[in-house]
Amino acid sequence: MLKVRKWEYVTPGIPDACFVRDGVPLTKEEVRCLTVCKARLKSDSVIFDIGAGTGSLAVEAALQAREGKVYAVEKDPRAAELIAANARQFGAGNLCVVPGEAPGALAGLPFADRIIVGGSGGRLKEILAAAAEKLNPGGLVVVNAVTVETLATAVETLKRPAYKEVNVFCLTVARIEKAGQAKVWKGMNPVFLVVGERA
Amino acid sequence: MLKVRKWEYVTPGIPDACFVRDGVPLTKEEVRCLTVCKARLKSDSVIFDIGAGTGSLAVEAALQAREGKVYAVEKDPRAAELIAANARQFGAGNLCVVPGEAPGALAGLPFADRIIVGGSGGRLKEILAAAAEKLNPGGLVVVNAVTVETLATAVETLKRPAYKEVNVFCLTVARIEKAGQAKVWKGMNPVFLVVGERA
Amino acid sequence: MLKVRKWEYVTPGIPDACFVRDGVPLTKEEVRCLTVCKARLKSDSVIFDIGAGTGSLAVEAALQAREGKVYAVEKDPRAAELIAANARQFGAGNLCVVPGEAPGALAGLPFADRIIVGGSGGRLKEILAAAAEKLNPGGLVVVNAVTVETLATAVETLKRPAYKEVNVFCLTVARIEKAGQAKVWKGMNPVFLVVGERA
Amino acid sequence: MLKVRKWEYVTPGIPDACFVRDGVPLTKEEVRCLTVCKARLKSDSVIFDIGAGTGSLAVEAALQAREGKVYAVEKDPRAAELIAANARQFGAGNLCVVPGEAPGALAGLPFADRIIVGGSGGRLKEILAAAAEKLNPGGLVVVNAVTVETLATAVETLKRPAYKEVNVFCLTVARIEKAGQAKVWKGMNPVFLVVGERA
Repeated sequence: MLKVRKWEYVTPGIPDACFVRDGVPLTKEEVRCLTVCKARLKSDSVIFDIGAGTGSLAVEAALQAREGKVYAVEKDPRAAELIAANARQFGAGNLCVVPGEAPGALAGLPFADRIIVGGSGGRLKEILAAAAEKLNPGGLVVVNAVTVETLATAVETLKRPAYKEVNVFCLTVARIEKAGQAKVWKGMNPVFLVVGERA
Repeated sequence: MLKVRKWEYVTPGIPDACFVRDGVPLTKEEVRCLTVCKARLKSDSVIFDIGAGTGSLAVEAALQAREGKVYAVEKDPRAAELIAANARQFGAGNLCVVPGEAPGALAGLPFADRIIVGGSGGRLKEILAAAAEKLNPGGLVVVNAVTVETLATAVETLKRPAYKEVNVFCLTVARIEKAGQAKVWKGMNPVFLVVGERA
Repeated sequence: MLKVRKWEYVTPGIPDACFVRDGVPLTKEEVRCLTVCKARLKSDSVIFDIGAGTGSLAVEAALQAREGKVYAVEKDPRAAELIAANARQFGAGNLCVVPGEAPGALAGLPFADRIIVGGSGGRLKEILAAAAEKLNPGGLVVVNAVTVETLATAVETLKRPAYKEVNVFCLTVARIEKAGQAKVWKGMNPVFLVVGERA
Repeated sequence: MLKVRKWEYVTPGIPDACFVRDGVPLTKEEVRCLTVCKARLKSDSVIFDIGAGTGSLAVEAALQAREGKVYAVEKDPRAAELIAANARQFGAGNLCVVPGEAPGALAGLPFADRIIVGGSGGRLKEILAAAAEKLNPGGLVVVNAVTVETLATAVETLKRPAYKEVNVFCLTVARIEKAGQAKVWKGMNPVFLVVGERA
């Protein structure tokens, strides 16, 4: 049975090890923090997390947008269960799991203030096209890219006139970790963030 | 006269250009976000920001800890004025400027839940010794280091038994910026974060 | 008049400040080193440096391939003069400046063992198409990319069956520099290298 | 039996997988390249590689300094055998394995033009003191640091008046690697280089 863990803080940054993962890829703590910050959440934001994986980003977003709602879209049924488990664990009652594949699975959802794309399964172009339809004016989309192609597609797609401003970031984090008796620098994988503001 | 800018979001991440700087060094947006996240703030945290500079970190912390209090310690009188201006601008009524040099200037302050050290003017060792006295049990200290010496001193000083856990991070961010007609990657300066949890 | 500087070493790594620049962008020392290493030069290699700029990469390559030849292609006449000046300065008699724009300017050149693309002026796709024609079997092409688009185009273009292997790297270097009395970390711009081996 | 592999190129950059490792830590290709470049080798340089591990750095140095000599100092007998095997494999007849622990093991060696410190087993301060005695005027020492402490000790020790110039670098490399069907960015561990020029 799952232990209820409360995240007692107002800032994002739940440690990676606190999430139930079961081998599903997880957005690392520092990347999650910067993604949630770049998404500029409000307490009542309506947020999509597309390709939500373990739901770690969705949970962090839900804890920030306490009076809002997070729709976590995930096509892998096993991962969808993990999202639900992680949401329960952190008391994120405003997180709603949407099983299914984007962009199709977005059809029944309301309009969004923020759309985070954590995973796109090779369909990023279609997903971003659908996202543009669902995003309220002034809304933000944040794409986390871990491949050359995803980054290029996001940069190419999020542009004028649909988006009035687009910013791109590369985040590289290293952590000191124990290696035998020594404590050495361990590099984490770089992640690229593309942030577009809907016109 | 200063325009009142409201930060409408619950997440940290005020753009660099929104702060009044007057040539004083500024903690860059992404570093501020990660620092505030690693500081794990609560809504009622009592926070010191030592070597506060323009006050950008102090303002972000104050906006997170709405029912708490931020003491921004700064020895340069010109910078102390900037902190006050930036606090006013963002409506951070819970930010209190403490003119003077740490560790001396800490004497009159209450106990703290979080101590952020943004600048130490070469006195980091003494500052961290004083910080350990002021920090509540379970409290966190976060040092932002931009030199080899500061990082080494922080790692050396923040250790058992006074601190039960110490974590170290290196954050490197690049942003896409316009360079003539092209948009190229611009590297920002790497920043090292040392986070200690008071026993 | 130009001082003759000899590079006394067998390894690449001429300091940035040794090159005549006149405001033309320069491939930084560490990026030059890694580019020349990834290009796996032989003493008799025939090398193109396309978009040679100040010629810093071409000079380093010429000093490695002493019995080979380097063709430095550059469309900007002012930069072409800088290349010649830098080649003279370092005694690179095997460096031949090719004024003109790639891919057109490649027409009169012999086949190449190595093709380095430092700059492409937005014509990377055509340049790589022409490069594939000029490259000997087993030859290597190394693209230095500083934009999202250039990286994506290089990755998309350099692939099977024309190239049997393609590798991609991101290089981020920081240097300690004096800032007032302190010595702080200064981040340099990240550079992406795409290396293809011609089938 | 070991296959003889010839490195056919004049530039450093032997792929990691070409070395016999047997679980011993290996200086990664890109770090090796930059280390050898920063060491500014001459064809007749006398070089120490202290804490040589698998000998990968020593082999690269030996291939650059063909008329010189590389002394690879290594305390672990198993690693010392690997160095010999890797030297044989790449035909580095000018590489001499020195079994034993620095600084003691340096006593019988001639004066050096270059000293590379790959590993120091916690005795960096003593090693650098001994190195200063062994280094010819104008000689270079290059320390590869993977911990906060090693970097700080190197920066603290390599200074005036014994060293006329000291430079410090942080190198972060990411490579695109296959992860299932996708090709994603994989971060490598950051490495710090401290380069001192003996007065």
